[in-house]
Amino acid sequence: MKYVYAFHEGGREQKFLLGGKGANLAEMTKLGLPVPPGFTITTEACNAYMAAGDTLPEGLMDEVADAMRALEADMGKRLGDDVDPLLVSVRSGAPFSMPGMMDTVLNLGLNDDSVQGLAKQTGNERFAFDSYRRFVQMFGKIVLDVPGDDFEDALHELMEERGVAVDTELTAEDLRGLVTSFKGIVQRVAGVDFPDDPHAQLGYAIEAVFKSWNGRRAKDYRRMERIPDDLGTAVNVQTMVYGNKGEDSGTGVAFTRNPSTGESLPYGDFLANAQGEDVVAGIRITEPLDAMANDFSECHRQLLDVMALLERHYRDMCDIEFTIEQGRLFILQTRVGKRTAMAALRMAVEMESEGLIDKNEAVLRIQPAQLDQLLHPQFDPSAKYEVLAKGLNASPGAAVGKVSFTADDAEASAAAGEAVILVRPETSPEDLHGMIAAEGILTSRGGLVSHAAVVARGMGKPAICGAEALQIDLARKEFHVVRDREVGGVVSPVRITVREGDLISINGGTGEVVVGQVPVVTPEPTGPFGIVLGWADEVRTMKVRANADLPEDSLKAREFGAEGIGLCRTEHMFLGDRLPTVQRMILAETPEEEEAALDALLPVQRADFIGILEAMDGLPVTIRLLDPPLHEFLPRHAEILGRQVDAFIQGLGDPEADRLMAALKRWEEANPMLGTRGCRLGILKPGLYRMQVRAIIEAAVERKLAGGDPQVEIMIPLTVTKSEMVLLDGWVREEAEKVFDAKGLRVDYMVGTMIETPRAAIVADEIAEVAEFFSFGTNDLTQMTFGFSRDDVEGRMMPAYLEQGLLPVSPFEQLDRDGVGKLVEWAKARGRAVRPDLKLGICGEHGGDPASVHFCYEVGLDYVSCSPYRVPLARLAAAHAALGEGGPGTTA
Amino acid sequence: MKYVYAFHEGGREQKFLLGGKGANLAEMTKLGLPVPPGFTITTEACNAYMAAGDTLPEGLMDEVADAMRALEADMGKRLGDDVDPLLVSVRSGAPFSMPGMMDTVLNLGLNDDSVQGLAKQTGNERFAFDSYRRFVQMFGKIVLDVPGDDFEDALHELMEERGVAVDTELTAEDLRGLVTSFKGIVQRVAGVDFPDDPHAQLGYAIEAVFKSWNGRRAKDYRRMERIPDDLGTAVNVQTMVYGNKGEDSGTGVAFTRNPSTGESLPYGDFLANAQGEDVVAGIRITEPLDAMANDFSECHRQLLDVMALLERHYRDMCDIEFTIEQGRLFILQTRVGKRTAMAALRMAVEMESEGLIDKNEAVLRIQPAQLDQLLHPQFDPSAKYEVLAKGLNASPGAAVGKVSFTADDAEASAAAGEAVILVRPETSPEDLHGMIAAEGILTSRGGLVSHAAVVARGMGKPAICGAEALQIDLARKEFHVVRDREVGGVVSPVRITVREGDLISINGGTGEVVVGQVPVVTPEPTGPFGIVLGWADEVRTMKVRANADLPEDSLKAREFGAEGIGLCRTEHMFLGDRLPTVQRMILAETPEEEEAALDALLPVQRADFIGILEAMDGLPVTIRLLDPPLHEFLPRHAEILGRQVDAFIQGLGDPEADRLMAALKRWEEANPMLGTRGCRLGILKPGLYRMQVRAIIEAAVERKLAGGDPQVEIMIPLTVTKSEMVLLDGWVREEAEKVFDAKGLRVDYMVGTMIETPRAAIVADEIAEVAEFFSFGTNDLTQMTFGFSRDDVEGRMMPAYLEQGLLPVSPFEQLDRDGVGKLVEWAKARGRAVRPDLKLGICGEHGGDPASVHFCYEVGLDYVSCSPYRVPLARLAAAHAALGEGGPGTTA
Repeated sequence: MKYVYAFHEGGREQKFLLGGKGANLAEMTKLGLPVPPGFTITTEACNAYMAAGDTLPEGLMDEVADAMRALEADMGKRLGDDVDPLLVSVRSGAPFSMPGMMDTVLNLGLNDDSVQGLAKQTGNERFAFDSYRRFVQMFGKIVLDVPGDDFEDALHELMEERGVAVDTELTAEDLRGLVTSFKGIVQRVAGVDFPDDPHAQLGYAIEAVFKSWNGRRAKDYRRMERIPDDLGTAVNVQTMVYGNKGEDSGTGVAFTRNPSTGESLPYGDFLANAQGEDVVAGIRITEPLDAMANDFSECHRQLLDVMALLERHYRDMCDIEFTIEQGRLFILQTRVGKRTAMAALRMAVEMESEGLIDKNEAVLRIQPAQLDQLLHPQFDPSAKYEVLAKGLNASPGAAVGKVSFTADDAEASAAAGEAVILVRPETSPEDLHGMIAAEGILTSRGGLVSHAAVVARGMGKPAICGAEALQIDLARKEFHVVRDREVGGVVSPVRITVREGDLISINGGTGEVVVGQVPVVTPEPTGPFGIVLGWADEVRTMKVRANADLPEDSLKAREFGAEGIGLCRTEHMFLGDRLPTVQRMILAETPEEEEAALDALLPVQRADFIGILEAMDGLPVTIRLLDPPLHEFLPRHAEILGRQVDAFIQGLGDPEADRLMAALKRWEEANPMLGTRGCRLGILKPGLYRMQVRAIIEAAVERKLAGGDPQVEIMIPLTVTKSEMVLLDGWVREEAEKVFDAKGLRVDYMVGTMIETPRAAIVADEIAEVAEFFSFGTNDLTQMTFGFSRDDVEGRMMPAYLEQGLLPVSPFEQLDRDGVGKLVEWAKARGRAVRPDLKLGICGEHGGDPASVHFCYEVGLDYVSCSPYRVPLARLAAAHAALGEGGPGTTA
Repeated sequence: MKYVYAFHEGGREQKFLLGGKGANLAEMTKLGLPVPPGFTITTEACNAYMAAGDTLPEGLMDEVADAMRALEADMGKRLGDDVDPLLVSVRSGAPFSMPGMMDTVLNLGLNDDSVQGLAKQTGNERFAFDSYRRFVQMFGKIVLDVPGDDFEDALHELMEERGVAVDTELTAEDLRGLVTSFKGIVQRVAGVDFPDDPHAQLGYAIEAVFKSWNGRRAKDYRRMERIPDDLGTAVNVQTMVYGNKGEDSGTGVAFTRNPSTGESLPYGDFLANAQGEDVVAGIRITEPLDAMANDFSECHRQLLDVMALLERHYRDMCDIEFTIEQGRLFILQTRVGKRTAMAALRMAVEMESEGLIDKNEAVLRIQPAQLDQLLHPQFDPSAKYEVLAKGLNASPGAAVGKVSFTADDAEASAAAGEAVILVRPETSPEDLHGMIAAEGILTSRGGLVSHAAVVARGMGKPAICGAEALQIDLARKEFHVVRDREVGGVVSPVRITVREGDLISINGGTGEVVVGQVPVVTPEPTGPFGIVLGWADEVRTMKVRANADLPEDSLKAREFGAEGIGLCRTEHMFLGDRLPTVQRMILAETPEEEEAALDALLPVQRADFIGILEAMDGLPVTIRLLDPPLHEFLPRHAEILGRQVDAFIQGLGDPEADRLMAALKRWEEANPMLGTRGCRLGILKPGLYRMQVRAIIEAAVERKLAGGDPQVEIMIPLTVTKSEMVLLDGWVREEAEKVFDAKGLRVDYMVGTMIETPRAAIVADEIAEVAEFFSFGTNDLTQMTFGFSRDDVEGRMMPAYLEQGLLPVSPFEQLDRDGVGKLVEWAKARGRAVRPDLKLGICGEHGGDPASVHFCYEVGLDYVSCSPYRVPLARLAAAHAALGEGGPGTTA
């Protein structure tokens, strides 16, 4: 087993072996680009290390030593040399980019000898010792687990002592002393001497990178991005080059096209006399790439050539890190660059027209989940704002509101009509009511699977988690952020305080927290959006429908490309001003009273159906008969009790309240999810379902009379036996015939069922003898298969399960292939065996999740149905599935 | 297709073709016994009739006519003859006995001509016209659907007119007039002339019997007894013989052994000069069989010979109906006789020792469900009591209590410490609280699948349904029964009134209602019980364990033959005087407080476990870690609110109440069945499970130190993923090792899980990688597979579903083979594929249902576990399964 590859030995196709960074360094080396030489330790070495219980695999360090000798020979320098030392960086590089999640050590090779060599070579003792103290600090923190603050405290103590405001004012002598203090800190805190031997340093650093693969943040990130845990990370050891060796040096980041807008022009940032960190940290103001043309014209021209070459070579927009050391350009890293959704769409369309890629590749260039950015509210791109802090982008969308520090406060403010952002160190099930009341959630602790993150995503609310810069003082109801700010050329820390009631804005898609109100817009999809989705429609084979309950939602869904309605929930037509009529039906004491209430509901239901069928003319519309339990249509216990108490105090009675209370007691259930709902209710209240069927069929007849093409599919909810279907199918057909006879006109329609109980899936063959279509209600199917009441587990148990790795992802977000998926497969196979043309679809929320859409494609469903705003995403995901992408094992 | 068989053409093996009665009549004819000649119309004719939409199959009436001609030739008489007419009975006879459920017509063939012939033959005009008016009445009621009361009213009007108290005082002339009035009633009510043609009468009667197969009562009975609907009934047409032709005639019923006690002596009732109806109706006092020796010595001797022959031939106790017509003995019917459980056991044991049957057959002679009679409370067999009314035996057991007519009254009386019998016309979900409060339930309407019946069986409470003799007056809170009572030789109707608060006794196993208190006993199983169950143990291969939570239950279970404990629910140890400690744990605000509460619970749990392990020494004990959600251990909302209000009124605070309320709100759930319970709770509260494991292992070590043989199986509830098992199995083993280290002694133990969510069954292979045993929790598995919350559906939806035939039987009573059963089979196959020695059992209530036990045997489970009182039943059912009996398609 070969564990170490020199850069010239590999290539970009070896991403899984060498990691993304290593593979691209090898590729660039092969292309003859000016890459500082080095070598890569493979992911297999990392996996062997972990498999052996955190022990470096045998032979690894020998190979590293060989590679290092070759590197020394190549460079004509030696590690630890006191005249012209070789210095290297040690960086992680996993097969998939995990930005900021793992560790890097720079300037490795420095010790009391080689620091002299560095000083000689650069003629800059201060630079050499500053590099040295930074190395000790970084190595101490990353490799030896010394808290970073210990070093920062020592640095600030020294600055105070010397009476200077910024560390650049410290002298070489100061820095030399600081190295000694830092080594003392290491000795005291880690209990070991700082290793002076560069080879030992190298071994430690490699091991630290391996270990960082299983760090908490890295694991959370992988869970969030669904990157498998067993890939491992590679380690890249690369010769250091310095952009801070003077005015003929510099460093920068370049993109071959604009990653925000997609515009086909080179784009980037440059800083003269600086290191890469400085660009990233944002402490100094960078210059645009074009500015290089003045002082670095040769390098600039060379860089543009490199960029053009790389884009042609990779056939995609590349993101490049480069350094100019004393007039010489080095390319430190490249990769296919990240981009906004808008940019991705524009690039895909333009690259297709440039002939760089074909339409299918253009479709594959857009991740379905990216479209969320285009369909959720976002900060107005033209708005100027200053980011106060950044956290993890835990749940997409932007929100603006007044800060509340407790769930009760949030609830109270929301009740008073205020928009609220709930700010907490972290959330727990007890904060649930506050989360429901808030527009958005911001926490200072917790990762992407923390309680706040999981619950917010479940609720579809913007959230930022783990914004560690926030120091929250719950007692005073305020939070502080300390930031470096440049005032008149001097960078100094500023303490910003945000109090309860202050307005803030958060962008859950980027993790940005801003003080004050940032204008928020819901982006209107632009030209490329329609073009790429059109291409997606050409390749996909699975239909996409929408879940919509009202005519206006149906129109919106059709605009987004829905090819029908997969789930129209009739209960939504029972609310609002119709509720009193529904309650009259529930309270009816005689069949006549019940019938009168149903008669009053019929025309309003019919009108809704007419509107929906008109909006979806020519496309199938699946209408589900009433599903929820009756007590959901009654006032809450406390409300009725209040009326009864009021009446009592006034010495009066409130007979209606008494009747409502009696009805509530009659229909209340211990576990309503598993109670008298769906077709069970229909069977107990035959008049209700018959009324609904009449309204549907009358609407279809009316549409046909008006010259339309209504395509009605009537769906029976919560079936568990064939006998239920036989009974209810009979009712439907009886009522339909009555309408046809009365109107003298027939319309075609289908009768089918939701498969949402495990039993329905198991006896699907029997049910398919009657049902003409199945729609998998994967929300309830997931609840019953797992025994998870979504209302109860999502806020309490799910975060703990995700955090402890007991579940890889919430089964309510992504369809559970191994459990729920098996039932879907089983039901499909058994159903189609009985009825080969059985129409199959899914109408749970999974219909809007890309991985679940892929599963539906694999199983062979005819369509997925999701909320109108997710229809474009599902169209794209279905196209990816048809192109063989996006299945299990692929990652974002 | 041959539809008609003369008695001499068939045999007892043709039960499914000829029905039970027809097959036995044929068998007796073949044996040369004096059976009045006749023929049987097959069940196939009945099925053809139903399949053709209630139309007699072609050719049937031709075959009947042929058979009737042969019968006339044989008897030398003719139907409708005015000199010596042939008269026949027409009786239903299904493959399985359905006593009283279907229809019979006697004296068929009478009309205005043949009644003269009958008068001549008997020399008794009054007898002839009484037979005629009875025939018109019976035919009118059964064949032509004329309400029976119309005839009774006319009869009583005439009696009043004539000034007589009983109908026997009416003269021949009176009866002749009554025939005319009865025919007038038929004409008026049914709208047809009474058919005078005997052949037409026969056709009508045959059709009426076919129709009675699908009568409401017959269908309910079949559902209850699980007799398939597609068997159909045969029709027996048999020459009439008369036991009421004078003092040389008589009729009786005989059993070859005593059906109550099992004693091996002929037993029966005889009435001189009477018809069969008179014996059954109980209007006249019958004499014991021996009394025949005086006036009917020859017939008596002949009858004893017949009985001996039949018992030898059938190798079982036979039940015989006979008639003596003018000194000549006729055997009208025989069948293997019904018997009490006690008699069945004694007969089985004695027949085995007589060499009549072998041990296996003896075991098969006892129906497992019969054992309920021996284990539920019963009326004291030595008690004398008068039965007020009989209803359907809807739920076994006897109860005594004061009558309540509303659920609220029942609840109030029960709260006041009274034993209550809830009496209602029928029950509905709103009566549930009254049913819970009552000792037993009695309704005047509704069948064996009515709401009252289904709910009572679910609750395990005695119930009688459809006691139609009860006239319930809810307004006056009383009920009336009108009965014929003989006073001084005169039978007259008596009206008995029972008022609210009066004491009554009910026997749900027999349907008997008695005024006053009948002593109730729980029978002690006698010698034959132990012998037969011993034989059952010899043949069965599946083990039987008990569900028991306390040492005393465990002892009881072992007495009943349990071979271990399949489910020990530790939550039952959290109640009573331990509840405050449990609440302290829930309310704990610091880890220290929580730990202190857990420390206090440890010794009491350990003591319970020691007791249980001692009771079950040497046998496996499966202990389930805590399963229910925490809010079940808190007071109810209203109770805490009451404390808070009290404290407020007194101007004080009740901080504990406030904390309880906060905890309740924290732990309350929308659907607790699918919420934070089972191992989910364990994972959120690690200290709790670790404490329980410590208590279990310490108990086992202590038992071993005391010289015992503890066999502990620790069971994790509500698993859905392998990862849960990995985590919790790890905790268990860690805690066990700690105890072993501390005590210096090891014990063997197993760790397994309940399979009670559909997902656990689906991914059973993964779970079996960790779990050493599976116990199928079929209660919850049924709830989740169907989406039925038992609490909610059993009182409301289930009765409607059973009544409408949407489910054949409640899946909570009998394991649902097609749905839940498939998951069990799947889990077994996948689990054993991974771990061939995986131990498999079932611990839902289905473990005590014979058909479900059979299913468990078929699937290949190692054991079933049920409540201690059901252990004997399960032992017997497991033996039946091993002998190939009791599976699907077999009936009681």
